[in-house]
Amino acid sequence: MSDSGGAGGSVFPSNWSSLLSFITSSRRNANHNANHNTNHKKKISTTKSQSAVDQAPLPSLYNSEADKDKLILLGNGMSQPSRAVMWFLEVNRIPYEFRLVRIMKGQHLSDQYATINPMRKVPVIIDHGDVVFESHTILRYLSQKYNTPDHWYPRSDLLKRTRIDSYLDWHHLGFRKAVVAYIFAKSLGRPYDAKAVARTAKEVQKAMDILNDVWLMNGKKYLMGEEVSIADLSCVCELMQLRMVDSDLGNRPQLQAYVERMAAWPGFEKVHKLFFQFVKMKKLDDYYYQHHDHDDIKKAKL
Amino acid sequence: MSDSGGAGGSVFPSNWSSLLSFITSSRRNANHNANHNTNHKKKISTTKSQSAVDQAPLPSLYNSEADKDKLILLGNGMSQPSRAVMWFLEVNRIPYEFRLVRIMKGQHLSDQYATINPMRKVPVIIDHGDVVFESHTILRYLSQKYNTPDHWYPRSDLLKRTRIDSYLDWHHLGFRKAVVAYIFAKSLGRPYDAKAVARTAKEVQKAMDILNDVWLMNGKKYLMGEEVSIADLSCVCELMQLRMVDSDLGNRPQLQAYVERMAAWPGFEKVHKLFFQFVKMKKLDDYYYQHHDHDDIKKAKL
Repeated sequence: MSDSGGAGGSVFPSNWSSLLSFITSSRRNANHNANHNTNHKKKISTTKSQSAVDQAPLPSLYNSEADKDKLILLGNGMSQPSRAVMWFLEVNRIPYEFRLVRIMKGQHLSDQYATINPMRKVPVIIDHGDVVFESHTILRYLSQKYNTPDHWYPRSDLLKRTRIDSYLDWHHLGFRKAVVAYIFAKSLGRPYDAKAVARTAKEVQKAMDILNDVWLMNGKKYLMGEEVSIADLSCVCELMQLRMVDSDLGNRPQLQAYVERMAAWPGFEKVHKLFFQFVKMKKLDDYYYQHHDHDDIKKAKL
Repeated sequence: MSDSGGAGGSVFPSNWSSLLSFITSSRRNANHNANHNTNHKKKISTTKSQSAVDQAPLPSLYNSEADKDKLILLGNGMSQPSRAVMWFLEVNRIPYEFRLVRIMKGQHLSDQYATINPMRKVPVIIDHGDVVFESHTILRYLSQKYNTPDHWYPRSDLLKRTRIDSYLDWHHLGFRKAVVAYIFAKSLGRPYDAKAVARTAKEVQKAMDILNDVWLMNGKKYLMGEEVSIADLSCVCELMQLRMVDSDLGNRPQLQAYVERMAAWPGFEKVHKLFFQFVKMKKLDDYYYQHHDHDDIKKAKL
């Protein structure tokens, strides 16, 4: 879980190859943002140490020559999509190297990072030189590239694969949007807006109802029925994210049994280790409204 | 473009088969909602005629016996994902039957509709009895099932297919979320919230910058470079949706050339016909803030 040394290089295959020069000269660079976990940056960008970090050259996260024979995951344990990808790699015992992108320091928003992932988000993988971003895309890609057991993302059965795609596509606006908005409203938004908290909490409850009542209806063991798939990894990592604030699964027996079942899979504990440490240490909603400094977050080395 | 007659039946293959009884008895039924285009419902649900529609049995949209040998698209021309799927079918000359789901009347929120698509959204396809929902999932499925030209969604080249997946996954929270929020704030939200309009407008501008500067960088003809793909259909239908309110493409030459290029593809005009009629007749923002009745929308028979 350490940053790599060495000089960074442009890693984009095919039509991404000239992205580096493009991105660094973009007139709108400062406006490019990531929806994902970037709101932290605003909170800490005014501290003195943060300014220093912003101005200093970031350590290279990728060295195109030294890293050409590796599968590298760039991510952060506080990011639910990063955990989903890491979990897939762990549970399938695919060799990879994890490199920490410090999202609390805005490292993913830097121009250097944009030469790796132009969307300035985590996670991203660099698979022997090929860059793939968007966590659901990475999960689809890895399952096919590394020929993992068919239940994760079936190769021959179009309809089974399509059911998984339906969940993955529904997830973004049907579930994840609500979780991200709720966590922001509850803990990061300033000034505190009680109406926004109530509205986003309702959206999260609705999404959990749909998970419990529809996706997991009739005693299904997993989202797709009897077999686990990449959809489950994304879903459960998103559910776990709610533990950053005072949210639980509510009176939803199907959902509760499902999460317990998923948590028993190899890799779950390892992937959530840093995240649970942080949650145990200080919930975000406690943190932001009972304290007025950022020492705890700094200590967590996110 | 007519509703089908005949008795409706449960159409779910495999583990969806018992959805009908489940959905209709769900305690949380009334809370299930769709993020997509459903906000209209609240606006018109208080009119007398609407109440009558809500209480009357809806015409069946699907007859499992009579329709078992068809590819059926259930959608609405005012819905951008519906248009993207219809466009794909048109441009590839795949035989299909279109059936109108009246989203302005909340037909997609009905229990009957939920027996077809449990997420209560449009579009959905029923392909010889197999139900597929989520527009990106449908596009992936159709390209493989009907063996369309490889550039739409390459079957043998994993990395090319992965690039398309990256766009499709980015689209939901990177672009579509902003468009839906902006149109809602600008024209449907009550009371009118100038701050929400400004904030969502900024998100739309940022997304268009990323499209122009990153996805279409360096004179690319299409999102994937030289060849058109299913990603382009989703992207352009979303861009068109902004014409419901006073939004244009701004000073973004790449994006403008791209949209003109896409509009020259077969099917674009046909698919957008009803939508452009509505836009020409009355923009939503004019409509909601200069008038106080819903006659125009009723006339449009959405």
